[in-house]
Amino acid sequence: MPELRRDPVAGRWVIISIERGKRPADFTRETSAKKGGFCAFCNGHENTTPPEIIAFRSDGSAPDTPGWTLRVVPNKFPALKIEGLLEKTGEGIYDKMSGVGAHEVIIESPDHNATLSTMPLKAVEDMLWAYYYRILDLKKDMRLKYVVIFKNEGEAAGATLEHSHSQLIALPIIPKQVAEEIAGAKRYYELKERCIFCDIIRQETDSRIRVVSENKNYIALSPYAPRSPFETWVLPKQHYSAFAPNEDFSTLAEILQKTMKQMDKVLDKPHYNMMLHISAFHDEINDYYHWHLEIIPKLTKIAGFEWGSGFYINPTPPEEAAKFLREAKI
Amino acid sequence: MPELRRDPVAGRWVIISIERGKRPADFTRETSAKKGGFCAFCNGHENTTPPEIIAFRSDGSAPDTPGWTLRVVPNKFPALKIEGLLEKTGEGIYDKMSGVGAHEVIIESPDHNATLSTMPLKAVEDMLWAYYYRILDLKKDMRLKYVVIFKNEGEAAGATLEHSHSQLIALPIIPKQVAEEIAGAKRYYELKERCIFCDIIRQETDSRIRVVSENKNYIALSPYAPRSPFETWVLPKQHYSAFAPNEDFSTLAEILQKTMKQMDKVLDKPHYNMMLHISAFHDEINDYYHWHLEIIPKLTKIAGFEWGSGFYINPTPPEEAAKFLREAKI
Repeated sequence: MPELRRDPVAGRWVIISIERGKRPADFTRETSAKKGGFCAFCNGHENTTPPEIIAFRSDGSAPDTPGWTLRVVPNKFPALKIEGLLEKTGEGIYDKMSGVGAHEVIIESPDHNATLSTMPLKAVEDMLWAYYYRILDLKKDMRLKYVVIFKNEGEAAGATLEHSHSQLIALPIIPKQVAEEIAGAKRYYELKERCIFCDIIRQETDSRIRVVSENKNYIALSPYAPRSPFETWVLPKQHYSAFAPNEDFSTLAEILQKTMKQMDKVLDKPHYNMMLHISAFHDEINDYYHWHLEIIPKLTKIAGFEWGSGFYINPTPPEEAAKFLREAKI
Repeated sequence: MPELRRDPVAGRWVIISIERGKRPADFTRETSAKKGGFCAFCNGHENTTPPEIIAFRSDGSAPDTPGWTLRVVPNKFPALKIEGLLEKTGEGIYDKMSGVGAHEVIIESPDHNATLSTMPLKAVEDMLWAYYYRILDLKKDMRLKYVVIFKNEGEAAGATLEHSHSQLIALPIIPKQVAEEIAGAKRYYELKERCIFCDIIRQETDSRIRVVSENKNYIALSPYAPRSPFETWVLPKQHYSAFAPNEDFSTLAEILQKTMKQMDKVLDKPHYNMMLHISAFHDEINDYYHWHLEIIPKLTKIAGFEWGSGFYINPTPPEEAAKFLREAKI
């Protein structure tokens, strides 16, 4: 069973995945995403993944056979396990709990070479629907408090498989960083009776210097204090705390694909991480938090200064990044 | 002038280094540490760095000429600038301040190929003295509140130059992550009237399962909740909040070099980050915080899950890592 352990000073939790315990020789200096070779996520290889949790199959084909356009499967090497009791114990001054949670993979397309920029718009929309359905299902499990949905694209972003996919990790605690972001938004609301993200959208829409694009329901922008060059956020223009198809997911898919095309053009297909930021399960509908997507292309490295301080050095002002993306000929 | 900007929700600050503003084409996907070629940090190339701030010269040679064993110079491309007023301003709902601070490089040896493992023990000790002298000097500047001292070794750790060096960045604010760590220690002290790091050392010394090594004054251990495989901390056994040569730096140099030799042996000369964690300038002597070094070999990548949650997945239990390091034949 994996373990969650808490650092007694900083208060952050880590997952010690004891069962995939790595010995020194298991670490390659640079793990590369497997180029070519056998791919477990490809069409026809359904029996090489754990059985699917959900799949989109317009042809009525049977589970774990070809015919799908999107599959969600458990991660074969999960960081957390869905079976078992959530046990919380102490170890002298330390705190730990059993590593109960879900770790799933969303295979976004049967096509090995598809990316968010190149796949049919419908496939991007389906990916968002899959996120939504999995949240709906996982929040029924009373042991779980939060789900982190993310996408690692490319080796520099930590992807170990080339085939385009997202992942989700559902956790028995709310991660410290998420709790702090939510608390920050809550403090602002208590002070002003306004959602801080709504205020950000208002100010950015007025000044326009950091706006990358917008459509009927969504806005893409470079945040004021980005950790990385070309960091981009996508937010619903209306206030929504929970991730849901409020105006359906088609306009979200549209702006997300457009953003990825702009990044591909300006940064020559960068490796990137995408993270969905949502409210906690127990307080999904509220006035103070505003769900959004954060996209971070991997252009700089996390080094000692960042590790030691949590401070980031960003060599590209967001005003310039937004301009480059906005003006990209896609 | 660089800018410090605050994320209005999460509260973290970032440095926007406007003057070295990078355009898209300036980012190479993998910036490599320059192998071979001209090195500005080598003996005889003193005129290619900004004038030295301090240097150790046992032969009485003149500043910025050969004859040194260690040099501290301003970073040629500083993230922050030492000149100028600290101005704090608002921009609508956002907060920023001028990027006042120091960014210096500690060149640890005139030998291009030296590393912490291979350089003379005296050179490691001198590096620690240089850290100490620079802290003494920088804390006199009333605009500055904290200094982050760190070392990036190898490309995967974010080093852009091969020649062994440390860096320091002195800041006009206490970074959020540092403030939280200090606050965590303070809360524990308020509750128990004991330093939490002293308690950690006591528990680890009793159980020994996470102890890597110890000598008269220092202990090296794998922390209970490490973010990365083989993360190792070095702490003084006695309680000291400020980084100072309490029992001189020779035993610290000894355990640090030993730790690096163990890592080199077990992990085949890993790239790594080393960070000095100290108290804030305004409260350097206290009962609740305990300075220490944190060393993180770069064996895993920061991916979407870590970005989105601040949670880390560590595939190597610290008990195993400590055992490997402890038993390394060095």
